[in-house]
Parts: sequence; structure tokens; C-alpha cells
Amino acid sequence: MDEKWMKLAIEMAKSTMGQTSPNPAVGAVVVKEGRAVGMGAHLKPGEGHAEVHALKQAGDQAAGGTIYVTLEPCSHWGKTAPCADLIIEKKLARVVVASVDPNPLVAGKGLKKLEEAGLDVTIGVLKKEAIELNEFFFHHTATQKPFVTLKAAMTLDGKIATSSGSSKWITSEEAREDVHRDRHLHDAILVGANTVKEDNPSLTARLRGDAISPIRIVLDTSLSIPSTSAVLTDGISPTWVICGSGASEEKERLFAKAPHVRVIRMLAELIELPELLSVLGKEKILSLYVEGGAKIHGAFLDQKAVDRMVMYIAPKIIGSSEAFSVFNGQGVQTMSEAVELSITEVKTIGRDIKVTAALR
Amino acid sequence: MDEKWMKLAIEMAKSTMGQTSPNPAVGAVVVKEGRAVGMGAHLKPGEGHAEVHALKQAGDQAAGGTIYVTLEPCSHWGKTAPCADLIIEKKLARVVVASVDPNPLVAGKGLKKLEEAGLDVTIGVLKKEAIELNEFFFHHTATQKPFVTLKAAMTLDGKIATSSGSSKWITSEEAREDVHRDRHLHDAILVGANTVKEDNPSLTARLRGDAISPIRIVLDTSLSIPSTSAVLTDGISPTWVICGSGASEEKERLFAKAPHVRVIRMLAELIELPELLSVLGKEKILSLYVEGGAKIHGAFLDQKAVDRMVMYIAPKIIGSSEAFSVFNGQGVQTMSEAVELSITEVKTIGRDIKVTAALR
Repeated sequence: MDEKWMKLAIEMAKSTMGQTSPNPAVGAVVVKEGRAVGMGAHLKPGEGHAEVHALKQAGDQAAGGTIYVTLEPCSHWGKTAPCADLIIEKKLARVVVASVDPNPLVAGKGLKKLEEAGLDVTIGVLKKEAIELNEFFFHHTATQKPFVTLKAAMTLDGKIATSSGSSKWITSEEAREDVHRDRHLHDAILVGANTVKEDNPSLTARLRGDAISPIRIVLDTSLSIPSTSAVLTDGISPTWVICGSGASEEKERLFAKAPHVRVIRMLAELIELPELLSVLGKEKILSLYVEGGAKIHGAFLDQKAVDRMVMYIAPKIIGSSEAFSVFNGQGVQTMSEAVELSITEVKTIGRDIKVTAALR
Repeated sequence: MDEKWMKLAIEMAKSTMGQTSPNPAVGAVVVKEGRAVGMGAHLKPGEGHAEVHALKQAGDQAAGGTIYVTLEPCSHWGKTAPCADLIIEKKLARVVVASVDPNPLVAGKGLKKLEEAGLDVTIGVLKKEAIELNEFFFHHTATQKPFVTLKAAMTLDGKIATSSGSSKWITSEEAREDVHRDRHLHDAILVGANTVKEDNPSLTARLRGDAISPIRIVLDTSLSIPSTSAVLTDGISPTWVICGSGASEEKERLFAKAPHVRVIRMLAELIELPELLSVLGKEKILSLYVEGGAKIHGAFLDQKAVDRMVMYIAPKIIGSSEAFSVFNGQGVQTMSEAVELSITEVKTIGRDIKVTAALR
């Protein structure tokens, strides 16, 4: 039955993806004599961990029972008391864990403490699924940088607009809704200044049943976007404008008047992606959803600053080589230098094709 | 059991796709008291129809039995005697047919003859599968033009070569093998003069276990390809060079010296696709596999002279808008004018994605 209960814990954790950052998504189930007596997930940073919720629901029935947790219980004092201690205190007999915590503050210590207290500890049940849940968290812990997802929508001939600039709409409503689901899952969304100037997008996550809108990051070396842009004025979610070292301080003051806007000045004159990703990592941005346009995509690709690519391919052909291409970077000179991807998923969404791939 | 036996007949017909043109692929099974007593398929134009082979194998056991045929038995004298007459002569009790023949010389007449002779006739078992078998044949019967499949291989960003012209190889060996299977299925393969000049391809179907190489058609308005080109000298399969009305007659004589080469002169100065397709249809080219390059693809798309598109998408990004795009035609000016496709299949082949789509 271990897999059944762990699957439930994972499902609970999965449903909270996008709402726990910078903490991981975690689910827990307490089982006593074959019956679930408590269930819980970590819901919000600063609030109780999954184990706390599940154990509270279980109450006295926890004693002698088994707790299933998707991630190793913590052993350190953070904003809440260590879960390992709580599990010992509640007198559970067994702990089943899917994945070990990569956080160096935890890393195996929680499990050791539980074993020393005489609990039966099992590790690795549905490990792969549990790790997939927290790809962003594990990546950030290992690299101190956000996990970068590059998203593009294009026609079957690789175009994002006709030669006259017409681009609405490439993909179907279903694909655009999928984009909003991905925005909800990421901590921040990134676009270039041109996208703001041309489309004046709100860059929020709009879904039926509500969604969390990510922080909006605009790369704007010289702070050139209009001060009337939606992202600077709507106050719906935070906007961070990234500029080069030489950008006008007057513009900075103007932009930052709005309480939801931050201007972040790079040390270099031009925005360099390694510096940017370090800064964002320090700011606890675990995941970045790069929406373009074509120059931004090209820059991230040229510098291989991409972990995952999501391409929506519409069953349409523009047919001209004059039309705008999906990537507008330096590119490579020979086919053997082309950036190689590993496709992880191909599926149809509405009438479009969605290709998900990892950089190799 | 009707479906079981028809499925077998279809499998036999399917295996002969590419070797029966301009005739359709047809399979037949004779069943007596629940046992197959004869099986056959049409193997080669000019030779016996599927029913003839199956009935011959069945011999005396055919009397009182059932014959399953994927296509309505013919009622007219062609190169062979009418199959409907043979079925009556062999005293079968029942005929089961998947699809009615669209050929106006046959169209329901065979079935009528069988019914009048007192046979029990069932129509439409696995009809869809049987029609799919002979898409090219049905299309040609209806339009007198070849069914046009446009094939392209590109990177995930819609490119067929880097800005420096490097293009080898975009797709994996598995995808290239799939192309050879498709070449085998088509009557003719078409490329532009530039492809011959740049790559000097042999354009044959090369597969383990042998394959039939299609007729090679080169669009070359002014007969400009080198007379040393492989398609003009190798004699492996026929080559038809299509030229405009003003092309040099001396060049025509030079090219046509090789017994496998034909020069076909258009009435118009430039090669117009409607004229070309009419000529090919009259020449009994039921299916045309258009391999490019980008200008040829663009021209076929601009004129909507495409029935099906097969795109092989490699998990690679070139990343520059200067690289060569997969379609180099006039294209469209606004997104709403883009050529709309209906995707019929998306699958992975080796590490590549294969997208098959029909023009809407």
C-alpha cells in the first residue's frame, strides 16, 4: 500500500505547485491500521509544513501510525519547528519518504534523527515523481539560479509574425490557456522591452477559478518602455524592470513611484544573462518563464541560459522567408553546432502541437 | 468474422502499396466454412487482380464460399477478364466488399452484376481503412491530377540550413529512412533545379530489403542542371525534366540522349503548377512527393497545390533569423490568411518529430 498512499501525497503536493515558492510543494498522509487518518500539504511559505497539517488532522490517532511524506521532513528550525521532532513527539512508528531534501540544511539529517529515535524509515517510494514535482526547487538549491523555461508560439514554418508584422493569433485558445497555467507555476515571467512597447501586455495568469500571477520582469537596458505601460501602472502583481548601469536615474525614480514596481540596475552597461540569473536567484526567483520576443529568445539560446523549452506549434504556414523567425539571435554557423534538445513530451493541445524539450 | 477476414485482406493490400500504381492496392480472401481457403493481392499492373489470385488458390473449395475484397470487383474487360464474372463462375455464395470503386467504368456495376446473379452482397466492412489504402488512386480518379505530398525536414525553429548554408544533417537516420519508405509509396518525386545543382542527389528509394524508386521529376525552366547530374546519368529510375516553352532544344536533345531521361516541355514560358499537375495526371502519376527546396515548397504552398504535408522536425535550434527558412514563397501578409492545416498525425521517429497534416 506504500505506493497508494504516496501517490495521494504527491497528488496533494502537485495541486499546490505554484503556490509554495520559494518552498517546495510537499504532501503528507498519516495512515493508521490501513486507514488514512490525516492528510495535508504545505500551502503557503511561512505557514505549516505538510506534516504539521496531516498530523494535526490525525490527532491522537497518529501514535503508532505511518506518515507518508513526499520530501524528507525537516530537522532545522526555520519559520516553523522541525517536522522530524514533531513526528517523534507524536509517536509515529514508521516514516515513508519519496525524496531526500537537497537543501544542505536538511539533507539526510531529518531521516537520521528519525532513525535514531527508533522509527522505521523507508526512502525512495515514487522518488522520480516526487523529484519532478519540485524541479524548480531542486535546481535552485543546486545552482542558486532560477530554472529557465523558454516558451514560444510559432507556425509550422517557424514564424511568429508575417513580414508585415501581423501575429494575432498564432495559436488556439486552448494553447493560450495552457500558457496561463504555466505562468501560474512560475515565480516570474520575463519579456523584452520591445514586447512591452509593441503589445503592452499585462502578463498575468488569467484562468477560470483564479490563478497566481507571477512577478513580471522586463529587460529594458535604457528604461525605454512608456511609463504608461500596463505592467508599470496596473499594480496587479509586482513588476521588476531590469536596466543597464547607465540608465537614466530620473526614469528609475519615475518607474519606481508605483509601489509594485522595482527597478533593478545591473553592474554592467548591457544586461548580461549570467549576472541577471544570479541576481534573480538571490531574490528567491526559483523559476523563470521567458516569453520572448524573438531577440530575447535568441539571447537566452545563444548563451545556453535555458533549461527547458516549450514550443507551441500552430498548424499554419506563413510560407515566406521574409516573415519573422521565432529565434532572432546570433545563431550557429554549421548544423553540427546547432543547440541540441531532448524532447520530453509531444502532445496536441486544441489544434496545436506542444513540444517540451530539455537542453542537452 | 467479417471484420477479421477483411482486416487480413486489407493487410495484404497494404503490403503492396507502392507496387500496383496506376492500379489500386487490393486484397482478397476466400473463406469456406470458417476457414481461409485462398488469399491474394493485386501485385503488379497488367497481372491478375486480387480476386483472381485468391480464387485460384481456393480452387474447387471456392464454390459456396465467401470472398472478402477490399475494393468492389471489376465488371469490365481491362487487361484481365472481369472479376465479377469469375466470382459468379466459381459459384461463390457471398461477397463482402469494403469500398465501392470510384472508377466510373466500375462504380457499382460489379456489385449489381453479383446481386443479379443471386449472390449475397455486403458493402462497407472496414470502409474507412480500405479508402485510406488507396488515397492516391481515389484522388486521381476524382481530379485526374496526382495527390501531392509536400515533405520538409527542419529544425525546431523552422530552418533548413544555417546562414552559411550548412544543412547536413538536420534529421536522424530513422527519419531519413522514413522518407525512403514514403518515396517507395509515391509514383514520382519532385525537386527543383537548385536542389540538383547544390546536392546532386540520386533521389532513389534506398531501403534494406529493396524498394521501388519513383520517377524523378526535376523542375528546370531553362534546362540549367549540369548534364553530369546523377539523375541524368545514373539510369537507376526514370528522370523527367520539366522545362518552360523557351528552353534550349539543344539542351533537350543532350539530356534526352540517356534512355531513362525524358524532357517535358510546358506550353507556358514559366512552369505553372496547374499545367504541370494536369500533365502528370495524364501520364498516370497518381502521387507526387515534393521534396523541395524552399522555393519549390513556397511555390506549391502559394498556389495551394498541396494535399498533404509531412514535416520532420529535428530537436535542434539554429537560433538566427538569417538562417534559411523551410518555405521561401510569397507567403501571406496577415496571420488570418495563413494556410490552415489539419493535423492528422504527430509522432516521434528516432529523436525527431513527424507531423502529418492535410490542407484544409
